[in-house]
Amino acid sequence: MIRVGVIGATGYTGLELYRLLESHPQVEVGFVTSQQYRGRTLSQVFPSLRDQGGVRLISLEEVGGEGVDLIFSCLPHQRSMEAVSWFRERGVRVVDLSGDFRFDQARDYEGWYGVPHTRPELLSEAVYGLPEINRDRVREAGLVANPGCYPTGAILGLAPLLEKGLIHRDRIIVDAKSGVSGAGRGLSLRTHFVEANENVSAYEVGRKHRHVGEMEQELSKLAGERCTIVFTPHLIPMDRGILTTIYTETKKGLTDKLLIDIFRERYGGERFVHICEDYLPETKFVWGTNNCFIGAQVIPGTRWVMVVTAIDNLIKGGSGQAVQNMNLMFGFDEDMGLT
Amino acid sequence: MIRVGVIGATGYTGLELYRLLESHPQVEVGFVTSQQYRGRTLSQVFPSLRDQGGVRLISLEEVGGEGVDLIFSCLPHQRSMEAVSWFRERGVRVVDLSGDFRFDQARDYEGWYGVPHTRPELLSEAVYGLPEINRDRVREAGLVANPGCYPTGAILGLAPLLEKGLIHRDRIIVDAKSGVSGAGRGLSLRTHFVEANENVSAYEVGRKHRHVGEMEQELSKLAGERCTIVFTPHLIPMDRGILTTIYTETKKGLTDKLLIDIFRERYGGERFVHICEDYLPETKFVWGTNNCFIGAQVIPGTRWVMVVTAIDNLIKGGSGQAVQNMNLMFGFDEDMGLT
Amino acid sequence: MIRVGVIGATGYTGLELYRLLESHPQVEVGFVTSQQYRGRTLSQVFPSLRDQGGVRLISLEEVGGEGVDLIFSCLPHQRSMEAVSWFRERGVRVVDLSGDFRFDQARDYEGWYGVPHTRPELLSEAVYGLPEINRDRVREAGLVANPGCYPTGAILGLAPLLEKGLIHRDRIIVDAKSGVSGAGRGLSLRTHFVEANENVSAYEVGRKHRHVGEMEQELSKLAGERCTIVFTPHLIPMDRGILTTIYTETKKGLTDKLLIDIFRERYGGERFVHICEDYLPETKFVWGTNNCFIGAQVIPGTRWVMVVTAIDNLIKGGSGQAVQNMNLMFGFDEDMGLT
Amino acid sequence: MIRVGVIGATGYTGLELYRLLESHPQVEVGFVTSQQYRGRTLSQVFPSLRDQGGVRLISLEEVGGEGVDLIFSCLPHQRSMEAVSWFRERGVRVVDLSGDFRFDQARDYEGWYGVPHTRPELLSEAVYGLPEINRDRVREAGLVANPGCYPTGAILGLAPLLEKGLIHRDRIIVDAKSGVSGAGRGLSLRTHFVEANENVSAYEVGRKHRHVGEMEQELSKLAGERCTIVFTPHLIPMDRGILTTIYTETKKGLTDKLLIDIFRERYGGERFVHICEDYLPETKFVWGTNNCFIGAQVIPGTRWVMVVTAIDNLIKGGSGQAVQNMNLMFGFDEDMGLT
Repeated sequence: MIRVGVIGATGYTGLELYRLLESHPQVEVGFVTSQQYRGRTLSQVFPSLRDQGGVRLISLEEVGGEGVDLIFSCLPHQRSMEAVSWFRERGVRVVDLSGDFRFDQARDYEGWYGVPHTRPELLSEAVYGLPEINRDRVREAGLVANPGCYPTGAILGLAPLLEKGLIHRDRIIVDAKSGVSGAGRGLSLRTHFVEANENVSAYEVGRKHRHVGEMEQELSKLAGERCTIVFTPHLIPMDRGILTTIYTETKKGLTDKLLIDIFRERYGGERFVHICEDYLPETKFVWGTNNCFIGAQVIPGTRWVMVVTAIDNLIKGGSGQAVQNMNLMFGFDEDMGLT
Repeated sequence: MIRVGVIGATGYTGLELYRLLESHPQVEVGFVTSQQYRGRTLSQVFPSLRDQGGVRLISLEEVGGEGVDLIFSCLPHQRSMEAVSWFRERGVRVVDLSGDFRFDQARDYEGWYGVPHTRPELLSEAVYGLPEINRDRVREAGLVANPGCYPTGAILGLAPLLEKGLIHRDRIIVDAKSGVSGAGRGLSLRTHFVEANENVSAYEVGRKHRHVGEMEQELSKLAGERCTIVFTPHLIPMDRGILTTIYTETKKGLTDKLLIDIFRERYGGERFVHICEDYLPETKFVWGTNNCFIGAQVIPGTRWVMVVTAIDNLIKGGSGQAVQNMNLMFGFDEDMGLT
Repeated sequence: MIRVGVIGATGYTGLELYRLLESHPQVEVGFVTSQQYRGRTLSQVFPSLRDQGGVRLISLEEVGGEGVDLIFSCLPHQRSMEAVSWFRERGVRVVDLSGDFRFDQARDYEGWYGVPHTRPELLSEAVYGLPEINRDRVREAGLVANPGCYPTGAILGLAPLLEKGLIHRDRIIVDAKSGVSGAGRGLSLRTHFVEANENVSAYEVGRKHRHVGEMEQELSKLAGERCTIVFTPHLIPMDRGILTTIYTETKKGLTDKLLIDIFRERYGGERFVHICEDYLPETKFVWGTNNCFIGAQVIPGTRWVMVVTAIDNLIKGGSGQAVQNMNLMFGFDEDMGLT
Repeated sequence: MIRVGVIGATGYTGLELYRLLESHPQVEVGFVTSQQYRGRTLSQVFPSLRDQGGVRLISLEEVGGEGVDLIFSCLPHQRSMEAVSWFRERGVRVVDLSGDFRFDQARDYEGWYGVPHTRPELLSEAVYGLPEINRDRVREAGLVANPGCYPTGAILGLAPLLEKGLIHRDRIIVDAKSGVSGAGRGLSLRTHFVEANENVSAYEVGRKHRHVGEMEQELSKLAGERCTIVFTPHLIPMDRGILTTIYTETKKGLTDKLLIDIFRERYGGERFVHICEDYLPETKFVWGTNNCFIGAQVIPGTRWVMVVTAIDNLIKGGSGQAVQNMNLMFGFDEDMGLT
């Protein structure tokens, strides 16, 4: 039994995280913070929680030496790094759901996020928390940088091909379709119902989305050479889910069977990765779960292959993966509280 | 003033076509056929039409020498070719909205549709009815093959680049996102509300969708060499609209400005094509219109460019384009009844 | 040909109004104002307008003696009354789409809206612009108060029964279901996509919604005695449309046929009211139109009847009705520009 | 640990039921039947189940003396009664999710369902399985008739008022708004995406819906006198959830506080009923849960009160309630496997 704290819990990711932690058999939630709603209970912010959400929200300043074993930070980037640092100084392990510790180099962070990194000394200890890639390092980590939602879907779909050196590192197209919760609970015209409903749009195209940097860093490590990707995120009129359609050119011809075998072999023992053999992933197949469904096909008559992955952006693309990381860090079954 | 007949009018495309024709200042609708609903009025099938839909539906067999100038065929493929042939023998001009006359060669049709072509002699006279490409030939045509919805969005986005020989003919990725009306009014589990809502899925991936053949035929003509495309259609939980995201590798470097200029120049005089300069197309921008919005960007640091097009699959991708073709065939203003 | 101005055009109602006016054969739009977006063109705010929206937005202060015949005010309540007064003083006729001039008495306005009425002297000249009820008075009006969306659906459904004294004036239940555009373009958590999608909720229940006062005032006039209604608006995950389900107890027994005949007789000559005889209205039947579809049934074994009406909240419940009023005021065909 | 069988598991209710049973700590699923999909695994029908759905579907005829303790029947009405009877003859306890055993009298069943009841001898032993009303009888029952989705929402909202004799038994209006999964997985034009999306419609109005008889029977028992209700179901463009808005006239005046106190007192010890005090229920608050949220308000200046209830039609309105009944029948904690 461990005791955890959640910082900044009143966004969609925080709500899902709290739900998972509350029903986790080895976790006690010690405190939950929220600047905006402090003094209220979590149920008052999210009525769906009922009695489960009786915990009173406190501000970050009120947190003292509560003796927690782990902190989840759901704060926005830049504010998160300060809080994370404070807890690391006190020896508390951390899973950070912001982008603050996902980059190996402060200058890369600053390039993609456009703000200075004030705690660069922590970057070297941070482990990129994609368990299917970095499982062993996560187990030992003091600070886990929980991956972004888009990178989770893209990296899981590309890793088996890159690790084997099968594809051209500059012919990787990642076309992602995300539900609106990916944009968070903050208000904007783009996420206003009447604008987002009955509409599909591309946004932050080219190399503008911050997740491009995160993807390229991790994919390059897997490939052993610098990868460049073309990435376009799209907004889809649904609450949740990311379907990632990946197009990449192989160095030599493959068959559908060979392709699927590569994925089956790579993810054979994985609890949360499911290879679809005679159908393709759809986001509804993974709704509310920590699963990643993957399908792949060779495009006949060409050297191109298509890989499709589906995740729930709030679970495998956020809170569920954070819990999976926690399970690894504390030696629990990797799927505890996640099935 | 011309007199037209509509064959097979009780699908979504037929309904939209009827709406457009009813309010067209130079058109009188002589008859409307439907096997399924014959004997009823169109308003009984589509209550939204009210008094506008008082016309009684007849079966195809009841159509005699009504002296119409033009027939729109909204029949399913294979059934359409027979009806089209009957009218052509009687000298009636035809706009066919099925796939039956879109291929130049009967063997290509048979390869993609998996059924024999019983009226191959008509293929040579059929004109592929994408006015922005074949305007002059449409004017003179006796038989116009109205393009498919996906090809419309893809070809308009690629034509300027292919015509100038700027891109590699085997590095063309077309990732399309379509509203559910594209799948028609026939019932299926895939288009059942509870399956399609809150979901996004890829279907007929690789080279399975029939529109691949149609696109490759037309793109190859524009390029002057054989083009191969990678095409994936996706189903989006909305009624209407297709967003087509195209990725293609250029032979030499371009800037955003050069790229946009190419599109502006190519479509300068087009009434229905709109080039977006400081924003990207969204399907809601073209909802219910015959417009095609196009945006394009260079992917920094690469030779890839991204082109995004948005159309309403039922209008520019179907009935609106059919009316645009009719306007050309009879010398009306090209946008008459379409604004 | 008349010349009109639109004040506060950058909400959803304003956009629809502009669309209708632009294609109206007897109208020239002289100017369009917007505080928020002044200096930009309307197309820059709403890309869907394309060339149609080339008009440059000015601030209200920049409007001078432009010699317009009519002003449409789409300003929020309270701000609208000042602007309307300014134009009335200069002899310009006005259709006001806010709630500022819908009440006969300033104290009623102040009770329901909670703010003082600073132009009470204009209330007596204002005509409640529901053409099917007040057609003759609208024709002569200098100032038309365009009805609210909910009152339009409710009053059209109740008028025939109240005028004939058939129902109990204190047993009227109005249960309305509205698309999210009814809440406007302003941002709020309630209209954030992730909150509104896949959800249905009641709001401002009991007697809290301002439209209750408006409905009761108009229904009482029709009944010739004071009516009390129970009204609950609900938010539905769709862009547009209001379905109003009305339950009311009749003083004596009716049959379905008698009931329908009452509606047919009352609305026999109406261009925009359609009585459904063997089916019930659905909001999709009126999408994008100025129509009101009405169905009615007797509840067997009781004295209760149910009336269902469907309108598009932005058209018949807003801009379309405003244009219908304009047509009456200037002697145009009542449906000009609306079909 | 008990062993259960599920008959007819391949609709939406069956899928949800299977999910709940699979993760229930005291249940082993012995077999699952499906005529349509026999021979396949449940995961092949519903890919979202993954390994959890490895069970192979058998036909009803293949079921032998498997020694199960309980059968859940998810068969359609009329087919269910035969299967239920077969198992009851073999001493197996049954929870029937169809409407076949909800009526006390065969003639009432036949009146509402329009088909003969071939097992009327079982009606007297069947218990109407709404635990909050019939908890003690459910514990002892051999055959539980699981309530319909609409009756669950309506009865829970009316019981406290009827039991105390506070309302007029012939002034009860029930206006329900349901997600499309309530209509099942069978295909129909009404549930085709393009028809149901961006639409709201009333259906089976007046006294046509079969749930009217079920509601009146149960409400009459609670009231101790015959109740008549006016019921209108509406279809809402969302997957799940029923919001039931109830209007009823009280015999004497109430305040909001008195009203809420009545509900709090009545449902004080209930695990799944939640009384909302300063807000109203929304369907998203109960999404995926077995909860029923209830809010109530007095309409000022009238004797009418409004009660709003929200349930998930597939859980509390279906499978969750079936599991709740099972828990009672076998002495498990009432919320086991449901939180």
